Amino acid sequence: MINLEKNISLGKMAVLLVVVTGEAEAAMQKQGKEFGYTLCKGKVGSMDSAKIFAAVETAAKKEGLVDQRYREEHALYHSVLEAYNGMCRGQDGLGTILRSAGLLFSIVRGNKLPGNTSDGEWIAVALYGNMGAPIKGYEHEVLGLGMNPI
Amino acid sequence: MINLEKNISLGKMAVLLVVVTGEAEAAMQKQGKEFGYTLCKGKVGSMDSAKIFAAVETAAKKEGLVDQRYREEHALYHSVLEAYNGMCRGQDGLGTILRSAGLLFSIVRGNKLPGNTSDGEWIAVALYGNMGAPIKGYEHEVLGLGMNPI
Amino acid sequence: MINLEKNISLGKMAVLLVVVTGEAEAAMQKQGKEFGYTLCKGKVGSMDSAKIFAAVETAAKKEGLVDQRYREEHALYHSVLEAYNGMCRGQDGLGTILRSAGLLFSIVRGNKLPGNTSDGEWIAVALYGNMGAPIKGYEHEVLGLGMNPI
Amino acid sequence: MINLEKNISLGKMAVLLVVVTGEAEAAMQKQGKEFGYTLCKGKVGSMDSAKIFAAVETAAKKEGLVDQRYREEHALYHSVLEAYNGMCRGQDGLGTILRSAGLLFSIVRGNKLPGNTSDGEWIAVALYGNMGAPIKGYEHEVLGLGMNPI
Amino acid sequence: MINLEKNISLGKMAVLLVVVTGEAEAAMQKQGKEFGYTLCKGKVGSMDSAKIFAAVETAAKKEGLVDQRYREEHALYHSVLEAYNGMCRGQDGLGTILRSAGLLFSIVRGNKLPGNTSDGEWIAVALYGNMGAPIKGYEHEVLGLGMNPI
Amino acid sequence: MINLEKNISLGKMAVLLVVVTGEAEAAMQKQGKEFGYTLCKGKVGSMDSAKIFAAVETAAKKEGLVDQRYREEHALYHSVLEAYNGMCRGQDGLGTILRSAGLLFSIVRGNKLPGNTSDGEWIAVALYGNMGAPIKGYEHEVLGLGMNPI
Repeated sequence: MINLEKNISLGKMAVLLVVVTGEAEAAMQKQGKEFGYTLCKGKVGSMDSAKIFAAVETAAKKEGLVDQRYREEHALYHSVLEAYNGMCRGQDGLGTILRSAGLLFSIVRGNKLPGNTSDGEWIAVALYGNMGAPIKGYEHEVLGLGMNPI
Repeated sequence: MINLEKNISLGKMAVLLVVVTGEAEAAMQKQGKEFGYTLCKGKVGSMDSAKIFAAVETAAKKEGLVDQRYREEHALYHSVLEAYNGMCRGQDGLGTILRSAGLLFSIVRGNKLPGNTSDGEWIAVALYGNMGAPIKGYEHEVLGLGMNPI
Repeated sequence: MINLEKNISLGKMAVLLVVVTGEAEAAMQKQGKEFGYTLCKGKVGSMDSAKIFAAVETAAKKEGLVDQRYREEHALYHSVLEAYNGMCRGQDGLGTILRSAGLLFSIVRGNKLPGNTSDGEWIAVALYGNMGAPIKGYEHEVLGLGMNPI
Repeated sequence: MINLEKNISLGKMAVLLVVVTGEAEAAMQKQGKEFGYTLCKGKVGSMDSAKIFAAVETAAKKEGLVDQRYREEHALYHSVLEAYNGMCRGQDGLGTILRSAGLLFSIVRGNKLPGNTSDGEWIAVALYGNMGAPIKGYEHEVLGLGMNPI
Repeated sequence: MINLEKNISLGKMAVLLVVVTGEAEAAMQKQGKEFGYTLCKGKVGSMDSAKIFAAVETAAKKEGLVDQRYREEHALYHSVLEAYNGMCRGQDGLGTILRSAGLLFSIVRGNKLPGNTSDGEWIAVALYGNMGAPIKGYEHEVLGLGMNPI
Repeated sequence: MINLEKNISLGKMAVLLVVVTGEAEAAMQKQGKEFGYTLCKGKVGSMDSAKIFAAVETAAKKEGLVDQRYREEHALYHSVLEAYNGMCRGQDGLGTILRSAGLLFSIVRGNKLPGNTSDGEWIAVALYGNMGAPIKGYEHEVLGLGMNPI
């Protein structure tokens, strides 16, 4: 059992939210809101990398994590791009290099440390799941995290 | 509180071990061993990226996570390289692009799923901490995960 | 008003030609020819990066900026590739990472400095425009410049 | 002579400011201020890429283009990183791959289009100069442009 | 005439096998088997990079160079990826950047040095052929080599 | 025994010259000259990537493979850079990512196909050797090939 009451931060919240499931996920969502974070979690799987970007951006807009200005979309986009680069580990691409990804994603918006407003709001995106050949079981875990001021 | 008794896996173990601290970290180490994993955790901070590789490799050898053969060192090295690429998010380099990282690292060796020996042993490396300008507080969280068969 | 009579050079000519419009563009074309440069300007917009390469190569052939030998096409291709990399700023790709570009391009052939023939002819390609999400107004300016001996 | 009274924008301003010299540069600085932009220009040459980042960041702070918060430094840093990637054209590094750069840089802060405040302020960084072997005259022009919301 | 009886090694075998043709290729296949190597050679041409991965993986499976476990497929995949990166020389992509490749490939499995079993088996993949514009004759030679423990 | 009298080409010559040793190397040098190629071979080992560039460039100048013009040095430099990228296989860097390389290099200048002068002269650079941890025996073979019109 992991107690998160201490030492939470924006990136850690995004990472923990994306890796836990079931009751722990529900507890995490609740705890995140108490810390003042806006957050959501979703799922996307594809050999087409653009679908990962689309899934995260659509969820963020639907859940009100970004407003209508391009500067907010830009911060979100670059956070997804960084998380995508992070999970690709130096060799970008999915279908173009014959691999596929089945992913969960989390998006968290708020202060880098809960309650510390001096550096304004940031947005963090985490991608976690399995990547590998397009054959069942031929895959291993990957995780990417990106964050930017918003 | 996160209950890890279900759904644990090699990569998730490396990620959770690297982000939690204090009692939760001790509990995680204990739980990991019960799942049959060999694991360790350490700390490294630098503007010189080579020091990150050296710190993880030294810890892995000292803790007996790899044997003397090059093939084991190769698997470890590529896991560190992938984690390093992951945390750099597409733009490799620390001091060369005027940024610094203060990191924790975890190394976990074992089956991709506890007790499932059909695909042999793998090694996972996670790097987590803060990266930013070499000025106190001018930084944000980063996380990278790499894994390879060993 | 910018006076270009002094300090002109191949790369600067390509950059200025691609960013100015209307009368200034016409003046630039005229001035470039007086300096002994062969030059042209065109337009391309797409989420498919290959179309950018095709548009520039087609224009260069049609305007007689390269001859039939592969070595000339190779110099042109690598100049486009460098300009493309430059405008992508470290994360190559358009549609694959869900972004689009609306661009102007310029191609200039001649000496690195007008009249200085000692290092032979070079070719420069500049790409300038807006890149962003495939949503109107969700974009910002980008510019890339590439050049090679020809 | 280029007339900039029409069609100016943040990125174009940064690009023109970095390429012009003498009276044209002074005119550009004046015009930029009239459009509501804060801007500065400087010079840096090195085989050590970190010095480019340091020179631009120091100038931006000295000229009041960014405030004390990390979110502003982050926007500036990523704009320098993008400009640096742009001028490196896909192969990052200076001294590590035995090449050197002699550069001018410009920094411009303001709306993407003068007077259009709907998307807030952005910061643009342009790097322009010559890159090549560390031998006099063995070099050609390069240009990189990066911009981010601030 | 090249005599290979001395100084052969896994990577050299893969490189020589992929570049020679006709009788020399047959002699090389025979010599490789005498050294204890398992090897095969094939052909693939495309603007779609995924087809290169598929061709090599299919040949490796058909010729029994890898078994059914993911760890073997993973070693093969990363060897193809490294060879692909090697032949792309820093700018990944074929059709996306308007270029095409006509390739031969070799796959060799065995000890790094014939008969030296202390570091176990490794797998090497070499790609060799021509890359260029999708126009006949507008191309030049490329070669990539990747290898991993298996 | 490999008979090279047929099917030789610029890139293949560079690759074969760099991998063979002793009498075969001497035979290759002789055969290359008969085909009209200018060529040389050398050795360099380092954790400092710049030394690889310096060693190849110095040899090329000393052996008269390039003249004094920057356009020739540029073609050579980009061929070394491509070969270096090729042997790094997607993750550039030596000492910065704690690895070392012990290399042989070959440089060949001439027509892409012997006697076929229609596309002028090209220059090819091949790097071959071992890369790995800075510990004896902890390394495996790598090979990179780059070529450009000159």
